[in-house]
Amino acid sequence: MPADALLVTHLPNIRYLTGFAGTAGAVILLQQRCLLMVDSRYVTAARALASPLPDGLLAVEPVANSYDEAIAQAVTREGIARLAIEAAHLTVARFNALAALIHRNNPRPATTNGRPTTDERPAHDGLPTAGVLLATERVVERVRMVKDAAEVATFREAASRLSAIARRLGEMAVPGRTEREVADLIEDAMRRAGFSHPAFDTIVASGPNSALPHASPTDRRLQSGDPTVLDFGGVYSGYCVDLTRTVQLGGISGEPGRLFAAVAEAQKAAIAAVGPGARPSQVDGAARAVLERHGLGEAFGHGTGHGLGLEIHEDPRVGRPMANQPDDPLEPGVVITIEPGAYVPGIGGVRIEDDVLVTANGCEVLTDVPTFL
Amino acid sequence: MPADALLVTHLPNIRYLTGFAGTAGAVILLQQRCLLMVDSRYVTAARALASPLPDGLLAVEPVANSYDEAIAQAVTREGIARLAIEAAHLTVARFNALAALIHRNNPRPATTNGRPTTDERPAHDGLPTAGVLLATERVVERVRMVKDAAEVATFREAASRLSAIARRLGEMAVPGRTEREVADLIEDAMRRAGFSHPAFDTIVASGPNSALPHASPTDRRLQSGDPTVLDFGGVYSGYCVDLTRTVQLGGISGEPGRLFAAVAEAQKAAIAAVGPGARPSQVDGAARAVLERHGLGEAFGHGTGHGLGLEIHEDPRVGRPMANQPDDPLEPGVVITIEPGAYVPGIGGVRIEDDVLVTANGCEVLTDVPTFL
Repeated sequence: MPADALLVTHLPNIRYLTGFAGTAGAVILLQQRCLLMVDSRYVTAARALASPLPDGLLAVEPVANSYDEAIAQAVTREGIARLAIEAAHLTVARFNALAALIHRNNPRPATTNGRPTTDERPAHDGLPTAGVLLATERVVERVRMVKDAAEVATFREAASRLSAIARRLGEMAVPGRTEREVADLIEDAMRRAGFSHPAFDTIVASGPNSALPHASPTDRRLQSGDPTVLDFGGVYSGYCVDLTRTVQLGGISGEPGRLFAAVAEAQKAAIAAVGPGARPSQVDGAARAVLERHGLGEAFGHGTGHGLGLEIHEDPRVGRPMANQPDDPLEPGVVITIEPGAYVPGIGGVRIEDDVLVTANGCEVLTDVPTFL
Repeated sequence: MPADALLVTHLPNIRYLTGFAGTAGAVILLQQRCLLMVDSRYVTAARALASPLPDGLLAVEPVANSYDEAIAQAVTREGIARLAIEAAHLTVARFNALAALIHRNNPRPATTNGRPTTDERPAHDGLPTAGVLLATERVVERVRMVKDAAEVATFREAASRLSAIARRLGEMAVPGRTEREVADLIEDAMRRAGFSHPAFDTIVASGPNSALPHASPTDRRLQSGDPTVLDFGGVYSGYCVDLTRTVQLGGISGEPGRLFAAVAEAQKAAIAAVGPGARPSQVDGAARAVLERHGLGEAFGHGTGHGLGLEIHEDPRVGRPMANQPDDPLEPGVVITIEPGAYVPGIGGVRIEDDVLVTANGCEVLTDVPTFL
């Protein structure tokens, strides 16, 4: 049951397809052209994107009332019998509202090329096969996963700028400063380096807090001997890069030192496993096997990494194989993080993260920072 | 068809109900207690929230595999025959996955109090009446809309801190600085004032850019005579405040001066219309009537305001009445922005925004900044 058109409602997907970076919008991707629906705030910006393109390729449609009404009107006007929707992003409420509006405009089944559709159930009858709305997943995401040359160039520049900041982490994370103060220094440095925003809330987790993989910075002051996890990222020309180093104030030693060595070895093994044809779960398995050998399997409670792009977490997921989760072989152009960690209450935590581009022959580590600072 | 339980998946709603502020989680609200499901990253933090409460009131359930599997297991274990879901937040993909998991665990209809349910259609058959999942909207949001005394105290403190920054906008927005530099100064000031993050991307829109209501800061340098819209907000103890002033560099004069006067008058009229029993659309209408009288109806393309709380945009929506959009009378304890604007290409734009608490007798303007800086 093929669709005539794809309704794109996920904003990063809209940005990828059209360049439009507003906070609201909708795209209907037809066979030969693309409708970009925006409200009055964005009409000028959207038209500026469309004007250099061949006539009609990107048609900007101002939304007078609601987005869903504009979408339903376009479905009728363009004679769309089967509209694919992004099931991973469209809410149940919006699905129901859209189905009702389309059904109101099309009480009889819509036609394509003059032939009636064979499915005569009304649009609001159910999911995913009833009526004109078809649930799809990962249509645009699969395309986004493989970066083109311009995107790779942006990643190289962004990773170089983030690495320059990371090499100065030792000057920022010093005894006496609070976690929050160190996080502010890192975020200030990202802004000055040309990042438009942090890609996520900067993590500075010192001493006992380092054993929490997703701690928020507190007013705790860093102390000599603390293992301190510093995880930060920025958005550069729309693309997200992400980097973690763990420092131990006063030098790596004692029980945390054992964690540093094991996590560094696990990260190296995972990076060595990255290449075209490797499944993300195999990359995860390479890191996990090293940590298990060190008796730290239980201490590694998260996945090894995630895709990077217009979003900080995008496909592919680099983790244990899971039912109903894609695990397609990596292709050249995919950019992922490699970030194993080990967290032991009472001792602390260590995570080491770099950003890696899959190449034709293996991979290129985009970030360039010593493992131990 | 009442529900036995409510599945809460929207993170701000989870935070409101339980205090849990992680980046993933799920809550099932039963008649007498609450299940909080979190993954391994958050178990320690979640248990710390539960331990001061009466035994069993907030039960923390660690999620071993996926959230949806944990939810489906709880549905079986707790004998939930009808589970309400948050249709405005749950995606179609997740609805379908949950319905399939629940159906797999309960091939025959679930029972409540030993009596079989009357609806024998399987859970994955459709929306919103089929099987165990019931679409609901705004259940927690309606409760969140009315702030309690502790929330009001947080708002007063946050608005006071944001106002202190706004009173210094005239020193920050000076000729020669770029829009981006001014935005950085504002965001630095918010951090130093105790805000954990900006509540949204700061807007600094100067000269021609001021005519775009949602411009992003550029490298354009501010010039004498420019109307410049400065719209910024911060998150303080979890709560969002939001403020806009427009300055004209070198003094308000010329054609922009006419916009300043009209928008200030519209804002005053809207604030005067705020009180218990007033409908949000009436507040919007008060601002709109003033701008229409000045011939600026077309120049005011957005709504007059929005609710504030754990989210920067929450209920109520303060705009023109729209079909299928709630417009319930305001109650004491509701906090909204009042932010009319007028945008005229070739002249520029003006927006003025304050945060207002509905009180028993009218309203209290929480922000405290001169209209003209």
